[in-house]
Amino acid sequence: MAVYTDVSEDELSSFLSSYNIGPLLSCKGIVEGVENSNFLLHTQNDTYILTLYEKRINEKDLPFFFGLMQHLAGKGIVCPKPIAAKDGTVVSRLAGRPAAMITFLEGVWIRKPSVSHCRSVGAVLAQLHLAGADFQMRHENSLSVNSWRSLWNMCRMGADTFFMNLSAEIDQELDKLESLWPADLPVGIIHADLFPDNIFFLGEKLSGLIDFYFACNDALAYDIAICLNAWCFEKDGSFNLTKSSAMLSGYCHERLLTSNELVFLPLLARGAAMRFFLTRLYDWFFVPENDLVIKKNPMEYLKKLRFFRQIRQVSELGISMI
Amino acid sequence: MAVYTDVSEDELSSFLSSYNIGPLLSCKGIVEGVENSNFLLHTQNDTYILTLYEKRINEKDLPFFFGLMQHLAGKGIVCPKPIAAKDGTVVSRLAGRPAAMITFLEGVWIRKPSVSHCRSVGAVLAQLHLAGADFQMRHENSLSVNSWRSLWNMCRMGADTFFMNLSAEIDQELDKLESLWPADLPVGIIHADLFPDNIFFLGEKLSGLIDFYFACNDALAYDIAICLNAWCFEKDGSFNLTKSSAMLSGYCHERLLTSNELVFLPLLARGAAMRFFLTRLYDWFFVPENDLVIKKNPMEYLKKLRFFRQIRQVSELGISMI
Repeated sequence: MAVYTDVSEDELSSFLSSYNIGPLLSCKGIVEGVENSNFLLHTQNDTYILTLYEKRINEKDLPFFFGLMQHLAGKGIVCPKPIAAKDGTVVSRLAGRPAAMITFLEGVWIRKPSVSHCRSVGAVLAQLHLAGADFQMRHENSLSVNSWRSLWNMCRMGADTFFMNLSAEIDQELDKLESLWPADLPVGIIHADLFPDNIFFLGEKLSGLIDFYFACNDALAYDIAICLNAWCFEKDGSFNLTKSSAMLSGYCHERLLTSNELVFLPLLARGAAMRFFLTRLYDWFFVPENDLVIKKNPMEYLKKLRFFRQIRQVSELGISMI
Repeated sequence: MAVYTDVSEDELSSFLSSYNIGPLLSCKGIVEGVENSNFLLHTQNDTYILTLYEKRINEKDLPFFFGLMQHLAGKGIVCPKPIAAKDGTVVSRLAGRPAAMITFLEGVWIRKPSVSHCRSVGAVLAQLHLAGADFQMRHENSLSVNSWRSLWNMCRMGADTFFMNLSAEIDQELDKLESLWPADLPVGIIHADLFPDNIFFLGEKLSGLIDFYFACNDALAYDIAICLNAWCFEKDGSFNLTKSSAMLSGYCHERLLTSNELVFLPLLARGAAMRFFLTRLYDWFFVPENDLVIKKNPMEYLKKLRFFRQIRQVSELGISMI
């Protein structure tokens, strides 16, 4: 849920006059995107997304994200492309915030993913990993395993009040994840937030990926672990093995997983669940009630974490060791 | 701030299959419209607005609103037109709610209206009143002077806690408005909510009117009174006489005001301020905090009411008696 910042017509027309995109026809604040204010613009030339970056995005990271989108688009990954202003810059300022224009992608995000959608997601994730291999800029994952303890320390005091005996379980779990986390998996560019609302489909066909603002350099298999969390559970909390199997098979069709990646996948999935549990818990405690954010229940991800904790081998996720 | 209801792709595609609008390309929840959930749809044919009507709109009133839009559009007023489904119906159901599709209007609503915008608003308001004259359906104003006392009674208990000595002032004011309210002014179709976010401009040119869901039969001059409240005050609360003068002159260029309408205009403006004060006060007390509505401060309209209360003659609003 977004649009935190409104823009006056004077500010907007002055901003748009620095682009070659034709006269403005309409500008609607849209609901998608949790972190930023997004506007759908019709101009006489085309349709665009205008984004104002709110405080969670660090302005100095924007060149990485835009460079990446440009790079991936050049490699055939369908994703938004940054629009350069007349002076060649991509990041500008509007209403006191960093702002940028990107191309608009048609497509609808899937509220009820099917097995076939999950297969397509696996395939496009692998394509993204391959396409990112020769991207030269680097960006550390600020929400990697190294960051979880400090996130947890900020929430720990409040946690037991809200959720019974949570502290002991999370303490133990973090000990485990930190000690077992693999250091030598294949790394590269990962999307790191490939949830259903960031993948568009037209009918059954995947039509594009959006929202690269969590993209970073990390273990490629960790990106798969995030997608297992994001796509393969049903609304009732059950894990759909047919979906995970299709996703992993879609992935491997494009890029084979090493045996080390397969061995560690259950642990990575447990870690990915921890990451979303902790950021949701943090928001639960620290994001003011009156912001226009629908707070997501952290417990959903604690349940996913518990599911992945009891997985003994990767075959239980729907893929067998070779 | 809207989109209360999300729609799954299955529901949406089943809904859209009953229309001749071409394959769906995208569907974005938009932030505009306080009362309903609005989606901007791109299809291969065109761009549309899909609206789900939430609880504040009575489904049985929808045929009046759509009939009116169709009628006004036929008379040259640029406003959204309802899209009929293949079976000819205009109101259907989606996600358990009444739903309808209307044409999309290009244009931008003005955050900082100028004198010239106010003149255009006056002119289009008069055109709307003239165009509505032969519309056959009727709809009473459920927020007319007759409704204010009961709205106030629901808020009265809480009011003094929040705003000092409010009760005595509003009690007196309602006595005055009820006793002085004119019964014999020219009546007809009024928009009744023609705030800046409901009028679109392309550059300096007015490009259309939207949101007819408060439209009703009432005194035409009361619609002007609403626009004086909505358009002619500056952010600091001061009344801009140049803007009101331009608006009234724009109106009279299209439709002359009777001397009775002119005499009562200050009182009508005071009543219009009361109407928005009371509905905002009601929302302040009774709309749950966690709904996605930005509550508007009722005091803004109490201040406007106090301004109009000290007006002695219509010339102080920028128009002279003939």
